[in-house]
Amino acid sequence: MGTDKSIQDYYPEDYAWCYGCGRLNEEGLHFKTRWQGEQTVTVYTPRPEHSAIPGFVYGGLLASLIDCHGTGSASMALHRKNGQEIGDGTEPPRFVTASLKVDFMKPTPQDVPLNAIGTIEEIHPKKWKIHTEVFAGDICCAKGEVVAAVMPASFIQS
Amino acid sequence: MGTDKSIQDYYPEDYAWCYGCGRLNEEGLHFKTRWQGEQTVTVYTPRPEHSAIPGFVYGGLLASLIDCHGTGSASMALHRKNGQEIGDGTEPPRFVTASLKVDFMKPTPQDVPLNAIGTIEEIHPKKWKIHTEVFAGDICCAKGEVVAAVMPASFIQS
Repeated sequence: MGTDKSIQDYYPEDYAWCYGCGRLNEEGLHFKTRWQGEQTVTVYTPRPEHSAIPGFVYGGLLASLIDCHGTGSASMALHRKNGQEIGDGTEPPRFVTASLKVDFMKPTPQDVPLNAIGTIEEIHPKKWKIHTEVFAGDICCAKGEVVAAVMPASFIQS
Repeated sequence: MGTDKSIQDYYPEDYAWCYGCGRLNEEGLHFKTRWQGEQTVTVYTPRPEHSAIPGFVYGGLLASLIDCHGTGSASMALHRKNGQEIGDGTEPPRFVTASLKVDFMKPTPQDVPLNAIGTIEEIHPKKWKIHTEVFAGDICCAKGEVVAAVMPASFIQS
């Protein structure tokens, strides 16, 4: 059921310019989030310049990964709740981040792919919480929590 | 007392490669944090590509700003507590981020300078909390909280 497809590849065009995950943002990071069973996963290998100190990944990059992984996961969850699946021709819901929390557990090594694994919790029909763990290999380097809310219509510029 | 100087311009060389605030990271964002009375300030104008949706700033960029503003503010505060000032020839202390929290209050408009204003709280001699408000003009768009800890010696690669 759509496990090979990323939600960001199917975001509406007006919602596809995010620096973190927008497929139309040429300078962006192009995070892509997919189903992994009932959880979600975003795999990303930071660029060499994404360092905190030499050899370790910048916390702001991890926060960005957790942020977009969270909104993507929320979109996927509500889409599925609405009876849709990624790539079925329907438009996934747009979410914005209400709050973001990151606990940095261990230094995150560079030059390895990072796996953000998300567990989704519905806290309101229009508000979802995503608990994320970011792994470098077997090591959990950061834990994140995103509260994502359905984007108000007023956000979209005419 | 050093209000014109940024702490990042005086970080030790091995600590000056941060993607957010390292002066030696050519691809980085080059955040710079200064005293403003008893508070601290980091002014940054996001790049055009730092969008969430067209016209509004990416949350991960705000998180990054709050992150480096926090560690910079902590370094400044401990430096001053140690009887030093920015640019007096002594090495400022190195900090790492233990946790980061951001509440996104309002959509943050692009194309205007953002002012991150920090209030510093010592919660332990080696651990400081920085409360930050990010303003676009008069509007507080995001509130952040960083817990910054003195960098363990083991972080530095030989």
